[in-house]
Amino acid sequence: MSDEPTITTIARRAGVSIASVSRVLNGLPTRAETERRVMSVARELGYVPNSAARSLKSRRSNQIGFAMADIGNPVYLAMVREIQPMLKAAGYRLVLHSTNADAADEIDVLRGLGERYIDGLIMIPLRVTDGHLEMFAAARAPIVVIGSVPEGTPVDNVRVDSRAGVRLVVQHLHGLGRRRIGFVNGPLDTVPGAARSAAYAEALETLGLPYDRNLVEVGDFYRADGARAAARLLERVPDLDALLCANDLIALGALDVLRRAGRRVPEDVAVAGMDDTDLATIAWPPLTSVSLGSAERGRAAAELLLDRLDRDGRAPRTVTVEPRLVTRASTMGEETP
Amino acid sequence: MSDEPTITTIARRAGVSIASVSRVLNGLPTRAETERRVMSVARELGYVPNSAARSLKSRRSNQIGFAMADIGNPVYLAMVREIQPMLKAAGYRLVLHSTNADAADEIDVLRGLGERYIDGLIMIPLRVTDGHLEMFAAARAPIVVIGSVPEGTPVDNVRVDSRAGVRLVVQHLHGLGRRRIGFVNGPLDTVPGAARSAAYAEALETLGLPYDRNLVEVGDFYRADGARAAARLLERVPDLDALLCANDLIALGALDVLRRAGRRVPEDVAVAGMDDTDLATIAWPPLTSVSLGSAERGRAAAELLLDRLDRDGRAPRTVTVEPRLVTRASTMGEETP
Repeated sequence: MSDEPTITTIARRAGVSIASVSRVLNGLPTRAETERRVMSVARELGYVPNSAARSLKSRRSNQIGFAMADIGNPVYLAMVREIQPMLKAAGYRLVLHSTNADAADEIDVLRGLGERYIDGLIMIPLRVTDGHLEMFAAARAPIVVIGSVPEGTPVDNVRVDSRAGVRLVVQHLHGLGRRRIGFVNGPLDTVPGAARSAAYAEALETLGLPYDRNLVEVGDFYRADGARAAARLLERVPDLDALLCANDLIALGALDVLRRAGRRVPEDVAVAGMDDTDLATIAWPPLTSVSLGSAERGRAAAELLLDRLDRDGRAPRTVTVEPRLVTRASTMGEETP
Repeated sequence: MSDEPTITTIARRAGVSIASVSRVLNGLPTRAETERRVMSVARELGYVPNSAARSLKSRRSNQIGFAMADIGNPVYLAMVREIQPMLKAAGYRLVLHSTNADAADEIDVLRGLGERYIDGLIMIPLRVTDGHLEMFAAARAPIVVIGSVPEGTPVDNVRVDSRAGVRLVVQHLHGLGRRRIGFVNGPLDTVPGAARSAAYAEALETLGLPYDRNLVEVGDFYRADGARAAARLLERVPDLDALLCANDLIALGALDVLRRAGRRVPEDVAVAGMDDTDLATIAWPPLTSVSLGSAERGRAAAELLLDRLDRDGRAPRTVTVEPRLVTRASTMGEETP
């Protein structure tokens, strides 16, 4: 993060909430002690409010958009749980768009930025099309993208090293002695699908395992698609001994299929998901999953957006979050009956 | 439903989509055969477009809001899955508000109707306060409420007979020979909490079972609250043999607690949820649950709203949906290992 002072840095330094800083800087009633501390830190850091941003704020909607592919995927829920209270504390209401990863829908939402029904947008597109890039370049309100964007795209950006995540889980399965590690991925023309595909091949190579295209199936990032893809994979390779799924919803579908096929998890087939959502602890057996830091990504995105709303004009910033493997009974076996 | 013709009735009669009817009536390019059928049905039914509604449409946002308590509860997801494509076909984008059942937040969203960032609102408030009622009366754009509202409230309304739902599941548990049927409810000052509380007492009375206040616990409509409430109940009544939970999230929490306490489900304790969400089939054992027709309620709400956007001025309408018991292994035992 940059060193230029913002309401977030002032809040952190003064030990008060972002909402308190915002109230003091906007001349609203605040406790005297809070006001004193905020003004002292603001002076100390040389904070100068951006007057262009201020005049914009006078016609602001006090709403921020969050556009995601599917409100049925709890990975986005984990982000909302972080983003919403941060924005609320700063005086903004969050409005949600579930776009079904439809690029036209997402571009429509971006157009909404121009219509001023939202003052800023956090977006997590599965595909970044030319249409997205044009709207990013033309936008007159702040945008934060969660996910990868091409170098030089003029938006703030939060990334996760999903390749490292795939590597962690493949190494884990290999370490358990599994050698026929199947992979059910989402669409290859999506940013996460492409990244996971490359990472799976890379991880096998690192471990000295051959890449067998029979072991790979592609569906979509939903439970029913995951089930269908897992069924095709199981029919083709009946003796697979591990299954990596590109998200937790796909893994739920795979668990359904394995149960119906009479395969024990993890004794016959170890199963792992990605995203480490709430579903991982609801599933039976509980699901090993790679956390891609959804809560951290949500927090980072909200922070970048609030800073940008507060002071525009700086260069775009990127925050990167590290993955973390969370092992449960679907690969380890201890908790299975 | 009323007999006055609307774009929905025309679409149904002409066997074409609502979007097609809308295109024809707005003079947009359409296949000749579609145009002919739509115009013929419209004339036959005596359809007269509402000109006041039309002039309003010229400054419309093409957005519809859906305000619910918690996007983490899949009961709302099931509604969104129905509402969104229906609105999209009619040319509207859906924006979602997750209000955490905060009345002030909900009233803020209602105020948004006046600011014209949405052309209509579907809302499912857990508490209907005087503030809500004032905004309903003052609103200059259509509102559909899913849930109960006081007699005479000027909004279209979709209800479910949740009392009948509670009766169905209590009778089911009683029929399985269970006699100490605990109940974990949500807050009693919410519309669903109050209705379920009355229905539980009523159902016991009908079956000749005594009402034992020790068997009732109140938490909130979330998984963690459900777990805490179930733990309190289990500690107070260690020999309870069934547990009715006021929604599926509470039931998930209860399953966690029973598993940790070494109680077998359903052998020791039969567990049932309400709402019959996707979680019921993800849970282990799969959860018996009362469907309160979330998909049907979503569809009915979208239909009422589209009709109202098309032709304002008629009297408020109410649609009622019937509950249905869906039995699974958490009460029946067949699928449990």
